[in-house]
Amino acid sequence: MSGDGEQPTPARSAPGSAAPGAAAPREFFTVRTVSEALTGFRPARRTAVESVGLDDALGRVPAEPLAAPHALPGFARATVDGFAVRAADTYGASEGLPSYLDVAGEVRMGEPPELEVRAGTAVAIATGAPLPPGADAVVKVEHTQAATPELLEILRPATPGEGMVRADEDAAPGAQLVPAGRPLRPHDLGMLAAAGLAEVPVHARPRVRIVSTGDELVPAAPDELVPAAPGTAQPAAPDPAGPHRTVPPAALPVGQVRDATAPALAALVREAGGEPSFAGIVPDDREALAAILRAALPESDVLVVSAGSSVGARDETAAAIASLGEPGIWCHGLAFRPGKPTLLADCGGVPVIGLPGNPRSALVVFRLIGMPIVRVVGGCTDPPPEPTVRARLERDLPSAAGRLDVVQVRLADGEAVPLFGSSSLLSILTAADGYVVVPEAATGLAAGSEIEVTLYG
Amino acid sequence: MSGDGEQPTPARSAPGSAAPGAAAPREFFTVRTVSEALTGFRPARRTAVESVGLDDALGRVPAEPLAAPHALPGFARATVDGFAVRAADTYGASEGLPSYLDVAGEVRMGEPPELEVRAGTAVAIATGAPLPPGADAVVKVEHTQAATPELLEILRPATPGEGMVRADEDAAPGAQLVPAGRPLRPHDLGMLAAAGLAEVPVHARPRVRIVSTGDELVPAAPDELVPAAPGTAQPAAPDPAGPHRTVPPAALPVGQVRDATAPALAALVREAGGEPSFAGIVPDDREALAAILRAALPESDVLVVSAGSSVGARDETAAAIASLGEPGIWCHGLAFRPGKPTLLADCGGVPVIGLPGNPRSALVVFRLIGMPIVRVVGGCTDPPPEPTVRARLERDLPSAAGRLDVVQVRLADGEAVPLFGSSSLLSILTAADGYVVVPEAATGLAAGSEIEVTLYG
Repeated sequence: MSGDGEQPTPARSAPGSAAPGAAAPREFFTVRTVSEALTGFRPARRTAVESVGLDDALGRVPAEPLAAPHALPGFARATVDGFAVRAADTYGASEGLPSYLDVAGEVRMGEPPELEVRAGTAVAIATGAPLPPGADAVVKVEHTQAATPELLEILRPATPGEGMVRADEDAAPGAQLVPAGRPLRPHDLGMLAAAGLAEVPVHARPRVRIVSTGDELVPAAPDELVPAAPGTAQPAAPDPAGPHRTVPPAALPVGQVRDATAPALAALVREAGGEPSFAGIVPDDREALAAILRAALPESDVLVVSAGSSVGARDETAAAIASLGEPGIWCHGLAFRPGKPTLLADCGGVPVIGLPGNPRSALVVFRLIGMPIVRVVGGCTDPPPEPTVRARLERDLPSAAGRLDVVQVRLADGEAVPLFGSSSLLSILTAADGYVVVPEAATGLAAGSEIEVTLYG
Repeated sequence: MSGDGEQPTPARSAPGSAAPGAAAPREFFTVRTVSEALTGFRPARRTAVESVGLDDALGRVPAEPLAAPHALPGFARATVDGFAVRAADTYGASEGLPSYLDVAGEVRMGEPPELEVRAGTAVAIATGAPLPPGADAVVKVEHTQAATPELLEILRPATPGEGMVRADEDAAPGAQLVPAGRPLRPHDLGMLAAAGLAEVPVHARPRVRIVSTGDELVPAAPDELVPAAPGTAQPAAPDPAGPHRTVPPAALPVGQVRDATAPALAALVREAGGEPSFAGIVPDDREALAAILRAALPESDVLVVSAGSSVGARDETAAAIASLGEPGIWCHGLAFRPGKPTLLADCGGVPVIGLPGNPRSALVVFRLIGMPIVRVVGGCTDPPPEPTVRARLERDLPSAAGRLDVVQVRLADGEAVPLFGSSSLLSILTAADGYVVVPEAATGLAAGSEIEVTLYG
């Protein structure tokens, strides 16, 4: 496992290298703010367009705006149960002095109307049925009364257009039904279905390849057991208890930990609309890492390197990533806690994200920086809103100006209680209801101030 | 298509039946408020428990709390790069007067420590490596200086526990890692992975069978083309343009509409964690409907009847549902706009939801009433939060006391602009950014008041 780098980091951690003057921090090459990263590191890459059926289209991102091929609903329809009439025939009608209309028959549901509404006549109609020619309004049945089976009393006047929708009221031909760039919502699918658009051109899900590094890591997810690409280092020994077990897993030998970050990253990738896959676990070794990254790059729309961010490993990771292609490293360090040792690169058009080594830091960075990158590569320019809640801050949160802090909080009685602890602890994330962002401009947030908490869910 | 029932509905809509006095509304059997429905109609049914791997577990609902099988991280670990020491050996150390310790060697990452930290000695250690016996703190490398390769100067004192986490600091053996009843989040998966829990017992996704009714409906989604169960009516003629077309779909014959509601409902079911399937389209005929419902019931954890809520069809639907089993209909009418003609029933332990006929009403009702039912049947007692935003209401929203109104709104410059129109129009939903709830106790909301908008996403 590798360091969090929250503190200024020395050049090397080996004892012999703690040279005189090592207490002076070694600076990152190019430290950026989170805002700079979110606005400045915008990959041009977009996934290809594919066609999916409506039943697979929920949450997918249309590659182009989709327009109505014809008017919707396609014919004027009644919106109430009652009688299709000429509105002019009902003017002045009242309970005391009804208008009288001859009932010419009824419209059958699902079929073209066979009757015409002439002056002085009415045609019975149910909600959703097509308006017969000649009619320009539908009088609700409860505003009528049968004088005889063939003679109708109209008790209230109708205005033209009342009790009906026009043939193009849901959509005119060519009108936009759904925009490009926004994940499809349930009712979008209804609208596309109404228009007969059973297939939708959407961006392919970005393939996000996840590489884990660390001499201490053993696989946690079964599909991480897939051997690494030929010519690269094999992953570390599998969990001795094995996957798909039914007995409780045993503790690992002292020194080894399961790769908790990769499965959680894969889930965040899925939430961002991507298709995650594991490239395996690589030891902290520059050549092995470079080999696995080179193999992963052509299979990746976004490449993520998890861990490998301790002082030594970070240098190895940076060197390996720098060797992948131009223009290369965009930033090597974010003014961000927890997550300073974050690396962003563009290697031959593939965005590459180097994450901090501590699980919590890696997941927080990926949520803030990685998910937007996956979304934009997948054509999503209008991401779904995140749930938030306002709460009172339970205690002061100090922060350095120019650095963005993400603080995990638990909610209790409208109060946001910050959770502190080593960024190696995942339990701080699982105990949190959400997080608070202390923006770059602020030097902290005072106890009692009203803050916005972004909720997990 | 069937009526919306927002207005008091007469007994029948056929012309001959508009008997004297038909203007007096026919009441629903049992009208309930939305609050009563949400608290009072709580199905006891729960889906079975199944085991899924971590890579399929995102959003799934654990059937029981999951506990740590052993301590996590499992051994005391360094959280900084530096030197494992006995804290007592560093007391009083300063840059002017350092403590001197013999460097006994280093801990190798991923392996049990071979060295012990004795009084007066230090062992080099990297972040994440296991603490050697005898050490109770890790001094950061930048608080040290090498006097010689074998002799270390400590420039600041360390307190016991500094620069490290305990063996059980992420979780003590038996501690709860994730609760039951809450959909699994990405970092939950990380925590389970860390513990070696590669398989999770979760509730099966509720099977939600969707029956569409309406003489005017033609299938929109390809899998709606599956014939209805044997012995029941066949679905209406397929869309003449056919599914999986590459040319723009043609307009349907006048009177016919595509079943837009079913695909949108299926998407809402998926968002609620359910597994939707289509039972086909049934004409407005009690026997045909009863037959398809009887066939669907044993295959359903929740049964949804879409449309069939016009005056006549609603009676047919209610009668067909009432024939399915005890205890039967719980409510037949909700004090809810748009969505009054909603039916809730428990037929032999299967919750049955009869939705209004207009697509918009049906989708709004299903979002508010149906999704919570699907969730609870799937064991989800702690649903994910919904995204909301506060906005100023652009105009007055009148509402009747005792009735809950859901009003679609567009957001513009912090203002919520209500969208009005027939509840047969889906375009009002697709144009909306979210919705406002006018609660049952309110008689409306005044223009300019600050309201909470639930966002679509």
